[in-house]
Formats: sequence, C-alpha cells, structure tokens
Amino acid sequence: MTQAAATTPASVQSFVDACRAAIGAAHVLTDPHDTAPFLTDWRRRYTGDACAVLNPANAQEVAALVKLAVEHGISLVPQGGNTGLVGGATPDASGHQAVLTLRRLNRVRDIDPHNNTITVEAGVVLAEVQARAADAGRLFPLSLAAEGSCTIGGNLATNAGGTGVLRYGNTRELCLGLEVVTPQGELWDGLRGLRKDNTGYDLRDLFIGAEGTLGIITAAVMKLHPQPAAQVTALAALASPHAALDFLALAQRMAGPLLTGFELMSDFCLRLVGRHFPQLRYPFADTHPQVVLLELSDSESEAHARALFEQLMEAALEAGIVDDAVVAESLAQSQAFWDLREHIPLAQAEEGLNIKHDIAVPISRIGHFIDETDAAIAQALPGVRMVTFGHLGDGNLHYNVQAPEGVDAKGFLAEHQEPINQIVYDSVHRHRGSISAEHGLGQLKIDEAAHYKSDLEVRLMQAVKHALDPLNLMNPGKVLR
Amino acid sequence: MTQAAATTPASVQSFVDACRAAIGAAHVLTDPHDTAPFLTDWRRRYTGDACAVLNPANAQEVAALVKLAVEHGISLVPQGGNTGLVGGATPDASGHQAVLTLRRLNRVRDIDPHNNTITVEAGVVLAEVQARAADAGRLFPLSLAAEGSCTIGGNLATNAGGTGVLRYGNTRELCLGLEVVTPQGELWDGLRGLRKDNTGYDLRDLFIGAEGTLGIITAAVMKLHPQPAAQVTALAALASPHAALDFLALAQRMAGPLLTGFELMSDFCLRLVGRHFPQLRYPFADTHPQVVLLELSDSESEAHARALFEQLMEAALEAGIVDDAVVAESLAQSQAFWDLREHIPLAQAEEGLNIKHDIAVPISRIGHFIDETDAAIAQALPGVRMVTFGHLGDGNLHYNVQAPEGVDAKGFLAEHQEPINQIVYDSVHRHRGSISAEHGLGQLKIDEAAHYKSDLEVRLMQAVKHALDPLNLMNPGKVLR
Repeated sequence: MTQAAATTPASVQSFVDACRAAIGAAHVLTDPHDTAPFLTDWRRRYTGDACAVLNPANAQEVAALVKLAVEHGISLVPQGGNTGLVGGATPDASGHQAVLTLRRLNRVRDIDPHNNTITVEAGVVLAEVQARAADAGRLFPLSLAAEGSCTIGGNLATNAGGTGVLRYGNTRELCLGLEVVTPQGELWDGLRGLRKDNTGYDLRDLFIGAEGTLGIITAAVMKLHPQPAAQVTALAALASPHAALDFLALAQRMAGPLLTGFELMSDFCLRLVGRHFPQLRYPFADTHPQVVLLELSDSESEAHARALFEQLMEAALEAGIVDDAVVAESLAQSQAFWDLREHIPLAQAEEGLNIKHDIAVPISRIGHFIDETDAAIAQALPGVRMVTFGHLGDGNLHYNVQAPEGVDAKGFLAEHQEPINQIVYDSVHRHRGSISAEHGLGQLKIDEAAHYKSDLEVRLMQAVKHALDPLNLMNPGKVLR
Repeated sequence: MTQAAATTPASVQSFVDACRAAIGAAHVLTDPHDTAPFLTDWRRRYTGDACAVLNPANAQEVAALVKLAVEHGISLVPQGGNTGLVGGATPDASGHQAVLTLRRLNRVRDIDPHNNTITVEAGVVLAEVQARAADAGRLFPLSLAAEGSCTIGGNLATNAGGTGVLRYGNTRELCLGLEVVTPQGELWDGLRGLRKDNTGYDLRDLFIGAEGTLGIITAAVMKLHPQPAAQVTALAALASPHAALDFLALAQRMAGPLLTGFELMSDFCLRLVGRHFPQLRYPFADTHPQVVLLELSDSESEAHARALFEQLMEAALEAGIVDDAVVAESLAQSQAFWDLREHIPLAQAEEGLNIKHDIAVPISRIGHFIDETDAAIAQALPGVRMVTFGHLGDGNLHYNVQAPEGVDAKGFLAEHQEPINQIVYDSVHRHRGSISAEHGLGQLKIDEAAHYKSDLEVRLMQAVKHALDPLNLMNPGKVLR
C-alpha cells in the first residue's frame, strides 16, 4: 500500500495555493469567519479545523482538487448541507484537512418524465429535487426533517431514510446511477438511468452510504414515481407496540402498496408535544399507550383513500387490535396529524437534551425489543422517561432516553450516556438489529459499529477501502478507523 | 498481489482427495457420467471440464472446500440450477477447475411473516421460495421462466430480473441480507433482516450480481410482500412503441403501484406464436403493430382491478393512444394472455436459432432505439425478421434477430452474429443503455462489456476483485478477464 506524503505546514500552504490557482481564490475560504459554518456539525457536538474550505463549481473542479490533495497528501472532508447527525462531514482538529463543499454543484441537469428520472448534481437541496419533480408531474419521495437544507449528495453519502421508506425505500433504492470523483481524482461517469443493468459489480451501491470515504459523489440519476392523486392520513390508538405490529400486517394486507406511512408515537411523546406545543390538539378523547399515524397515497382519489381507511379501521376495531381511530377529513387535518409526529423531536428538545438512538430491528422484534430494553433501562436508572417513536413500518425507532423529571439534562447525559448506549446497543445486537438505521456512522458511532460487527466484516470493509483509497485521503476517521 | 500456487496434475489430485476427506467421497463427483450435467450450460453453448463436481451439504462445508481450493491453488465455479444464459456457471476446458454446486444447501431456514422475510439457503429452487411464501400468506414476487429449476443463489449471483421488476425490483431489491463464504474460506454472516441499516459499506450489493467472482453466497434473507387479493391482466393494441410509452405513463398515473406488469409484444412475435402454437388464439379482431400485456395486482378485489382497467382503457382509447383493448374476464383468460407472452421464446425456438440480445435503455428511449436499430439492421441484412418483446416497463427488451424467411438459421448465425451484435450494442451504447439487462456477463459478454465500459470503470471493478479475491480463484474468467 502506498503511503501519503507526510503533511507539513509547508505542504498545507502549497496545497491551498494550488487550490486557489485551480478554482479561483474566491472559492478557497480560509478566513475563520468564512470557514466557521463548515467546521461545526449541525448538532454542535463536533468542531474541527481546516486548512481551507474548498468550494468548487463543478465535477471537473472537484476532480482537479482531489488530484491536488493526492499530490500534497492532504485529506478531504466532503460536505453537503451540513445537516448530518453523526459528525460525518466535520474535519478533525489538526487543521491539515480541507473541507470540500458541494454546494455550488447545484444544477438539475435533466428531467425525463417518461423514464421517471431526474439527474441532479450533488449540491441540489432535497426540497428542490422534490419541487422540480412535482413541476414535471412526478413524485420524488425522499422526505426528511432537514429537507429544506440537506443536499441530495449528502442523502446519497449517508443513504438517508426518512418517512417514505416503507413504500419507496431508502435513498439507495431511489438512485439509478452516479457520477463520482475517485480518490485518484478521476471522474467516473456512472450516470445511467436504467432499471436493469447486470454488467458487473455494483459500484453505485458501494459509493452510496460510504459517507465520502470511497470517493466524492458529484451527480446522480434519481428515480421518480407517479404523483398520487391523494394522500390521506389517519391515527389509530393502540394498547402496545405488539398491537401495532398486528395492525401493520392488517394494513399491509388491506392497503398493499398504497400504505406509504406507518409511524409509532408513544403516549409520552404526545404528552411532551402537548406540554410544549399546546396548540396541537391531542386527537383522542381518552389517552392510549400508543398512537400510530398512517398515510395512504392513492392513485385514484381522496374519496377512495378515505373509504379504504374506513374499512381498515373497522376491521382493526372489530379484531380488537385498535382501540380508537380517526381518519383525516381534510388536507388540513392530514397535515395536523403529521404536525403531531413532526413536533416530537422539537418537543423533546424543549424538554432538554436526551440520549438519542437511531436503531432498527426486524419488524417482528420491535415489541420484544421495546419491552426488554425499557425494562433494562428502568432497572438501571429508575425514573428515566423513554421517548420512543419512529418508522415502525421499517423497524426503525428513535429510541431516546430523557432524564427523570426535574433532573439536570446535561449532568444526566455526561454521567449516563455511555452505560445507556451499551444497554440499548447490546439489546439491538441480541435482536440482530442495527445501531445506526438511517444516520450513518460518521465519527460518532465508528467504534461501536466496529465492536458489534464481526472482525471479518470489518476486514472486508477495510479491504474495499484500501483498494479504492490506498492513501486514506477521503474523509479519514469516518466509517472505519 | 499474492499469486496462486501453480496448478499441476498432482496438486489437482491431492485437492480432490482432500475434498473427499472433507465432505465425503459420495459428494465429490468425478465420474464423467455424474459430472456431465454440470459441465454444459443450459443453452448448450459452452462445455467445460472439471477435476470434480463438489456437492457440499452446508455453508461450513462450502467454507472448508474453499480453504482447500486456496491451499491447492484450484479455482472454483459455483453453480445453482445451471439455468444461466451466459455461461457463467460453466468451467473452462482445462480440467483444473472444480464446479461447486449449491444444490444440497436447500433448506428454508426461517420465515417471519411479521417481518415479511424468508431466510433461505442458496440451493432452494425459486418456485419453492414462492410456494413457502404463499403458504405463509405472503408473496415472493421474483418470477421468471426458469423458476421451476433455477435457485435463489443463482438468482442472487446474477441479480435476476423477470416479470415483476416494474413493481418489486430485481433480485437485488428483494434481498436484505446474505451469508457468504469469502475467497479465503471464511463465513460472513450478513443475514440481517433489516429495512434500514447504515453501518458501513454495502457488502451485500457487492456480492449480489458478482456471479460468484467475489465469494459464494450460501444463504439470504429475502423480502416478502403482502399477497394481492387479485391479479388481473389486459391486452392493449397500439400503433408503435412510442404509443406504448405514452400508454405506460398513463397507466402508471392511473394505477400507481398496482401496475405490476407491462410487457411489449410486436405483431411478428404474436404471428410466430400463432404459427407454432395455433391453439393460442390471437386476441383482437384486426392485427395491430404492437400489443401490450398489462397486469394489475390489487389488494382490494378482482372487481376493483377490473373497474380500474376499464377506466384506464377508456381513457387511453379516448386519447387515441390505444386502438383496441380487452380486459381478462376470468383467471383462465388472465392466464391465456400470459400464455401468449410466455410462448414467444418457445415460438422463436421452433422457428429456428436466432441472434439474441437482452438489452436495456432508458424507458424514454425505447421507441427511438427500436426505430434506429431496426433500420440499421434492415439496411445491413435485408429480410431479417425482428423478434422484439419484453419488459417495456423496465426499459428491457429481448431484441432478437431471426434469419430471413427460408434462410438456414445456423449458417445465418455463424455469418452474421458478430456484425449484428455490433450494430445492436453500438446503438444501446449511444442510448446510454446496458448490453446485459438481466442475464449477467458470464463468459459470453465479458469482452463486449469491457469494450463499452470506460477504462476507469473496469479498473474500479478490478480493484474490488483483487481486494477480495487476490488469488483469482473464484470463478475466474467470468465478469472480468
């Protein structure tokens, strides 16, 4: 394996100078005032330093910068909208790395309604992809909280999930082709818009989810879907996560692929929302241990979707799976139901810092996982409050642990984060789950991932990394040590 | 890169002896009578030789055999149901390779209806996976002509397509986790049944579609879907592939994800079926240039599906996209429509050998591709007959060229296969398509794939291959030189 040249202050300076010559001094930021927004992650857990923030205009400039990085032995940290949750786009503290932001690669290169594809550069903001698809009468179904500022390149690098996965899959399943600058600064044109292509190894899916450690994604061909005629939501009140699983099976049988959302919210989540956002009305007369939000996306009509919901709720009430239900009667009410769900992260933030987990288990294990893990945490730390909600239809929970009522959140986190993580991740591991369902590893979960993976799997990943990036210049210290 | 030990007759014999000791002499076939069925591919284009056909009972025995292969420098050719169309499972002529058949790894290890997953060993026949899913009230949607004898391991190794891709994706999209024996004989347990898992590189998708060149898939967790309440088909007669594209867009808008099949059949295909299978009735009063077969999979009822079809056909007739249409009125009639489609490959075989292509282009390009390529072929070889049919909804055509009426097929193939391939593949390349949409590369298309891919893409594939299989013992001479 070739080694990178040793990084010295002189080589760093000469790299920065060469970047200025390559893409123009105005696009090589070094003033601390200019670079600061790129050096701290969205959750403000990590702050790094950088010799420069590079702001290239196009894929050719990205390739040129990567070649310069190789020449000078400088490692690069690609960054999209800087909305990641695991510090994957934040440089280390050395000041020898450079951040490479893709924000100026923001063109929609092509939209092909008959092929149901859109070709976008990495820096296009997710909401813009959605809007451009809608303009062409199509749906781009990736949807998540940060959609107003995250970029499609970041979504691809982290294989982002969100609320549409049940029906449409993760970002990986929405991508048909990529353009990537390799760690050697070559430009791979894999921008194919094909549903079927069996001509070799799946390089596309290797770059997706690699968090910039195998190359820099500069553009992608993304799948579009027909726009549904109507989207209608409903809420169902249930006794337990186990009941929610039975309900999911029933809803999938009766609604098939029209079911596009199935989100679980515990009563405590809704009480937090009620406490901090009292304008959002609790939708049932009585309180219930769990509430599920369902969404149907119907290609016929709103009336058809509502009728289908009525049938489903009737069957579920009759079977004793669901205790109460309400189907939205207007677009405004559908939005109000989503508002409840979307205010949970905000409400918990108002309540104070908590210990967050983004975990997945096989859907069939969710009830057991919650029962066992809740019990273990309650035993270890009596009085803590579980903020459990998420994408039940995908087996993905945001399983967060809030300090006991009245306890200082900062002190609670400092003292208990590690042992709580261990309880949760051990439980996830027993249920053959994932400790990072949709957020990636970044620098936050790198050691935990290595701990729970087999040695063989880590070695396979290292072999791939070394094969593609032998100098370890692409976002080193993320995903893998 | 380490080099494999030189293969000598002595090392071959000592390998075979060691295999006998490892898995029992009864499972190491060397008698030509026993090995013959494993040495010729399904289309009888390739016949190889092998020092032995190894028939292990489980993944541990596969791992032991791979370790022996490494020790003795013997290369292995994994084989499933031996139904591949590109010679990917046939050994070379040296007699120094060993075929490793996965047929005894035929257990369904687990079925989890709440998680919508089935865990199967590589040697389970596809039809058996479908049947076991149906027993549990679920649908396993992968479906293709060889389903009675192909195995799920082979489907995964080639990322098989088939008739359900429009709605459910290729085999890759149906797989959640894998168990793989690496080229070093280690057993990777990646049998995760998760919809979301962002904890590192996508090793799963690297092994899928690699045709056994990166390791041997021994088991997989496959996705199941709810069983639809009804499947109904219809036929529509149209003027051209261009009209078929407009019809596809309309059908997707009106039926959304209920549309699970959209197959194009040219008039010549149907005339061939009529000639060789006169019992299959042509469904329209007049002949039309193109016929599309549609399938709806409805979670409500047959009546609902039929009503939706009626609305769709009315809209299409009114818009002048479709010239005539017939909706199946019974399960028997639905099957009769599929029979027409499924008899096309049989009818062309009756007509005589032809030059076959399994190509894909962006769906929006299909009309232009057919127009241009038909014209180029007609100019090069007046009188040839185009057998054009396939999965239009996926942009995937079986674009076959039959000798002119009365011309000897064998002589035609011998003389014209290469120049015809070049016309077709050049046209595919111009339209940014794939020269192997669903069959893989095997040994048949290995040079053509390298020719049409960029040097960089070939080098990236080689880097991955060398990283995982530095001794080049896993199915060498397939996918990559």
